[in-house]
Amino acid sequence: MNKYVCTFITFLATMTVNAQIMPRALGFEFGVMTPGTHNAITDVANVLVGQVTLIEGNDIRTGVTAILPHRDNIFQQKVPAAVHIGNGFGKLAGSTQIEELGNMESPIILTNTLSVAAGIEGIIEYTFSFPENDKVYSVNAVVGETNDGYLNDIRGRHVKPTHVVEAIAKAKSGPVEQGNVGAGTGTVCFGFKGGIGSSSRKLPETLGGYTVGVLVQTNFGGVLQIDGMPAGKLLDQYSFQNQLESADGSCMIIIATDAPIGERNLKRLAERGMLGLARTGGIASNGSGDYVLAFSTDPNSRISHQSRPLVLENTRYLRNDDMTALFLAAIEATEEAIINSLFAAQDMSGRDGHTVKALPIKEIRALKESLNTTNR
Amino acid sequence: MNKYVCTFITFLATMTVNAQIMPRALGFEFGVMTPGTHNAITDVANVLVGQVTLIEGNDIRTGVTAILPHRDNIFQQKVPAAVHIGNGFGKLAGSTQIEELGNMESPIILTNTLSVAAGIEGIIEYTFSFPENDKVYSVNAVVGETNDGYLNDIRGRHVKPTHVVEAIAKAKSGPVEQGNVGAGTGTVCFGFKGGIGSSSRKLPETLGGYTVGVLVQTNFGGVLQIDGMPAGKLLDQYSFQNQLESADGSCMIIIATDAPIGERNLKRLAERGMLGLARTGGIASNGSGDYVLAFSTDPNSRISHQSRPLVLENTRYLRNDDMTALFLAAIEATEEAIINSLFAAQDMSGRDGHTVKALPIKEIRALKESLNTTNR
Amino acid sequence: MNKYVCTFITFLATMTVNAQIMPRALGFEFGVMTPGTHNAITDVANVLVGQVTLIEGNDIRTGVTAILPHRDNIFQQKVPAAVHIGNGFGKLAGSTQIEELGNMESPIILTNTLSVAAGIEGIIEYTFSFPENDKVYSVNAVVGETNDGYLNDIRGRHVKPTHVVEAIAKAKSGPVEQGNVGAGTGTVCFGFKGGIGSSSRKLPETLGGYTVGVLVQTNFGGVLQIDGMPAGKLLDQYSFQNQLESADGSCMIIIATDAPIGERNLKRLAERGMLGLARTGGIASNGSGDYVLAFSTDPNSRISHQSRPLVLENTRYLRNDDMTALFLAAIEATEEAIINSLFAAQDMSGRDGHTVKALPIKEIRALKESLNTTNR
Amino acid sequence: MNKYVCTFITFLATMTVNAQIMPRALGFEFGVMTPGTHNAITDVANVLVGQVTLIEGNDIRTGVTAILPHRDNIFQQKVPAAVHIGNGFGKLAGSTQIEELGNMESPIILTNTLSVAAGIEGIIEYTFSFPENDKVYSVNAVVGETNDGYLNDIRGRHVKPTHVVEAIAKAKSGPVEQGNVGAGTGTVCFGFKGGIGSSSRKLPETLGGYTVGVLVQTNFGGVLQIDGMPAGKLLDQYSFQNQLESADGSCMIIIATDAPIGERNLKRLAERGMLGLARTGGIASNGSGDYVLAFSTDPNSRISHQSRPLVLENTRYLRNDDMTALFLAAIEATEEAIINSLFAAQDMSGRDGHTVKALPIKEIRALKESLNTTNR
Repeated sequence: MNKYVCTFITFLATMTVNAQIMPRALGFEFGVMTPGTHNAITDVANVLVGQVTLIEGNDIRTGVTAILPHRDNIFQQKVPAAVHIGNGFGKLAGSTQIEELGNMESPIILTNTLSVAAGIEGIIEYTFSFPENDKVYSVNAVVGETNDGYLNDIRGRHVKPTHVVEAIAKAKSGPVEQGNVGAGTGTVCFGFKGGIGSSSRKLPETLGGYTVGVLVQTNFGGVLQIDGMPAGKLLDQYSFQNQLESADGSCMIIIATDAPIGERNLKRLAERGMLGLARTGGIASNGSGDYVLAFSTDPNSRISHQSRPLVLENTRYLRNDDMTALFLAAIEATEEAIINSLFAAQDMSGRDGHTVKALPIKEIRALKESLNTTNR
Repeated sequence: MNKYVCTFITFLATMTVNAQIMPRALGFEFGVMTPGTHNAITDVANVLVGQVTLIEGNDIRTGVTAILPHRDNIFQQKVPAAVHIGNGFGKLAGSTQIEELGNMESPIILTNTLSVAAGIEGIIEYTFSFPENDKVYSVNAVVGETNDGYLNDIRGRHVKPTHVVEAIAKAKSGPVEQGNVGAGTGTVCFGFKGGIGSSSRKLPETLGGYTVGVLVQTNFGGVLQIDGMPAGKLLDQYSFQNQLESADGSCMIIIATDAPIGERNLKRLAERGMLGLARTGGIASNGSGDYVLAFSTDPNSRISHQSRPLVLENTRYLRNDDMTALFLAAIEATEEAIINSLFAAQDMSGRDGHTVKALPIKEIRALKESLNTTNR
Repeated sequence: MNKYVCTFITFLATMTVNAQIMPRALGFEFGVMTPGTHNAITDVANVLVGQVTLIEGNDIRTGVTAILPHRDNIFQQKVPAAVHIGNGFGKLAGSTQIEELGNMESPIILTNTLSVAAGIEGIIEYTFSFPENDKVYSVNAVVGETNDGYLNDIRGRHVKPTHVVEAIAKAKSGPVEQGNVGAGTGTVCFGFKGGIGSSSRKLPETLGGYTVGVLVQTNFGGVLQIDGMPAGKLLDQYSFQNQLESADGSCMIIIATDAPIGERNLKRLAERGMLGLARTGGIASNGSGDYVLAFSTDPNSRISHQSRPLVLENTRYLRNDDMTALFLAAIEATEEAIINSLFAAQDMSGRDGHTVKALPIKEIRALKESLNTTNR
Repeated sequence: MNKYVCTFITFLATMTVNAQIMPRALGFEFGVMTPGTHNAITDVANVLVGQVTLIEGNDIRTGVTAILPHRDNIFQQKVPAAVHIGNGFGKLAGSTQIEELGNMESPIILTNTLSVAAGIEGIIEYTFSFPENDKVYSVNAVVGETNDGYLNDIRGRHVKPTHVVEAIAKAKSGPVEQGNVGAGTGTVCFGFKGGIGSSSRKLPETLGGYTVGVLVQTNFGGVLQIDGMPAGKLLDQYSFQNQLESADGSCMIIIATDAPIGERNLKRLAERGMLGLARTGGIASNGSGDYVLAFSTDPNSRISHQSRPLVLENTRYLRNDDMTALFLAAIEATEEAIINSLFAAQDMSGRDGHTVKALPIKEIRALKESLNTTNR
């Protein structure tokens, strides 16, 4: 399908085409720390994001989101990484090797639940495309997923390894496209249209000046809260209210930082991702696959695949005592990234005529403004 | 020291004696579910709480809180239990055996960081006091702690095994004393006086009708949020603002339920305790010992110490699919228990003339009322 | 390729075609418990094993081994399961969901490291082939692997989803083919030809009468020990001796039992798999992906995918106190399964002219006989 | 009680006073690597061991073993550490904080199950005895235990904090006293008298030249195997044989190394301790508290308690790829340390007239010699 047709189908598939109004434009702040330049995971130096969106016909509403820790050969230049499992009803490929070795050797691919195999194949092909990887016999592909089966013909497994390679190839720095895009094309969150979201925090120099960036794929339920405002209750739409809204679903949370921290403190950082999710009203329901992956882009912390035996690695790292500000940054950026995904998403209809409406920004704006008048 | 002197010293030690105004009186709701009769962990059938408060002289501000899953011989009638570690800078005795065996065989004792040994000794003495335990050679004492060293002469180790036995002996059902009491006597939370807090949720019959109760010992930092209201920012007191308020400290969270669930789902329930903490603005700082212990009081799920070899245990349990409502209940009850501890606590001065002010309820009331006018 | 051609190529590929002499024929006993009828994982009622062996041309030496907990629709009738990670340099798909939910909903597929994606695809196709699974949108495919890249053109990814479906379709009870077969076709163990191995233990009725069965895919190093006999040293072939033999590699260990035990005790059983591996001289080297998966086939313990909300599951289970005999059985059966894989394997040559010799059974027999003369 | 009386009672309590014949004197080798100077944990530079043995009257048969990573103020100069739990039916104090922070800040105390509180108190007192620790309000005391209640009046809790302080004070380098000493005074292993054991391995320079040392407190069951020789079966004494010998009990395993490795690789090293235990015939029975604690004494890896905020730690560490030789060393040294504890122990009678015989060395020697004749 060529680009023009795809764009046209996108137009048909999305019932309302809003300009994206993001939460900060309405006065939401999400904590006490300051976002980076793009308020996105790409504010962390070297991090790249690439996405492929599949919207075709009546029932293909899915895609691929690739996050790269750097543009070099990741297999040869691994990065410190760790995984935290908030709720393990999901299929994150690669998690156990990351935990054992403390590092990550592939791009991170997000996609739908039944396309994890395509993600693995795509990563292997991408890895083999580097000539210097010609003796590589093992690749720990990192592929996360949420289930977009309500809007997408997920059983059709429309994501192919080529889409994965394409998403990696398109990866770039700068602003991150959010909402109904890539792996977030067909997701649903708090009963509204979910999607891809991103946010970041830049610590003040007195706290180290490091950046923490987050990217999420939102597909879960609960009782929506926007920067403390009980939006779910005010809009009368939340889980357990009337059995209409399932709490189930999942959230993939990717956390990047340029702080020089090892795998243990990256795991602690990852654990804070779930605290950010909680602040939005997420509850990690039984059916959730809530996985958080954190990695460091600090150039000195890279782990070369090749090495001379018994030569010690020299490194430098932040002490435990200096971690708390990074924890807070991860919490705030996760909270905001999730809400961003909701603000950026738009109405979507798909499989079997299912339609999911976007968060009603106008009503949110009205509710927020009434609060602003009174409260600040 | 006799009771009258103790009471008098308590009077001197507490600078303001407020009647306790609890958050629900101001209109805070903490979610969408309904509390039990006492809005306390004791709403879970059979759960008992006993506390010993040590306020003596200028610098003893500590105590013991005991939580019992039932009034019988716990060693002989163990209960299913699990532990989740939110941040492990703490000393929860007994956690690894609970994890291995899936059960708990002692009361839960909360106290200060340097009195864990006294807690263990007290539990052993209590366990040995049952004649039918005369052949017991191993007791897995469960003792949690937070550090009350800012107000309390913690190095003096004033908690003795007799205090522990006394707290267990005093354990009772009904309302739970909150604030500056037991293990919460000397704790600090969000820069205000913390303490013991409790709350509960009773699921509607359509969701099973089970009760989830929570008791917390609050001693941690972050950016206080009360049912979504950004209290820390509005009161201009929070961590990282001006380095005045440390984010460090700890929170012990005890979750009880009468739902018939085994150790794996109890662990999942325990994990949700941290989501409740996150909703109050807690961040699980580097220095936090944030431990969550969950147990079931379901009578059919008790594990008898004595048994005939190879006789199978018959049991019945809730399926994974039915857990989500319990998860939400645990999140809401933890959130409210933490805020309750702040509302119930009062100003306290102690070691080296340190003073910690209670949360200013009047200001909170005013802020809340302005919101109510606008928002509902 | 038709069967005859395949058989012929097998003949060419295997340089020596021995009749298999198994360790018990030489007097090795591996502990104090008694094997089941077939001394194989299939001695556990309902367990089925199916294998597809790919030996083609000069460099395809790989395959698929499928283990099924029962012949019914596994997705609809899940079984209790748990995973232990001895050393996580591997890619076991499905592990985190098993851990979260305590059950397994797919066949277990073993294959080579770069064919995990094919394994996942094959399991999805197999699961979708059941008409009653037509609303299934998520499948937790369980796929383990070791790296057969020394003998096999692993980068060619010759295993296809159809091979996976075929292995599942061929699954049967009774004796298990061992050695250079299925996922063990191209593996290397202790510097000799490894492969698939299996063994079992039947507890005496006084210990419950349960059966524990084990299947392994052996591809690791160390200092070989056969039922205590220091074979590696006696044969002068072991890791660290002269850098000739790498200690690296992996071992997949699958443990089945008909004992009615839940996921926590299955995890404990899985942990004992590594103790069995240790008794063979395995060391879980840095490069090992040593994963142990344990499941129960007890019919009363099956977990139906469909259920009525809030209806409790009735179950019965063995107490902690009765687990030790099962632990010993798992250790002994794992030890013997590994040694069986070595005895059953035969010389193999493959990629780039690499050749791996089988364990020299004649020399082992001579060494063992000299011991028998003296020792008993 | 003065020293002379104590010695005399010791004489009465031990029924046979053998000169200790250690396994290497009989030709046992335990693997392929070479022990250090003393074949003890103290071969690791800076490691110190101190023991207090309590043998009094008819029924006190217990004690304390202290292991120090260095002679300085450990609280101020913490060391990287990690814990692996082989089977968690035990009470290792301090484990969760070690896991969270990756370091250890106290001596390691081993004692009996009901004296963990005394161990904690003793460590706190020792830590407070350093003037520069006068602002310390939290100490993560590390106390392990096994249950010596068969020979010892464990309910009497005869170990006091002063004994703990004394054991620490007595800690020294050089040969380690083994057998019925310290925390091993009253333990039982494989149905024979257990106790304290130690061993070490010094890697050849081509593998890094590092030393790995192990100290164990042995109190567990199974089917004894000595360097592969099936001693339990040959002596007709093992678990499950005739219900006479329980498999239950526990093993504490302490692993020290001078290799510069962080907490993740220390955890991996700790995991190998259980592989060493397996090689002796241990099975980690249901009732076992099998805990392994590993730490590094590398001076560059020490973590100073005091630090300037945000100043990075410089460090150097061994890569994952270089870990395998250390893994093998830990396995071999654990195996030998356990067997050493049995060889060094002597007959002991204690509580209620219980008597436990030592391993019959003469018979072991005879069995071994018959093997040597034939086999080498």
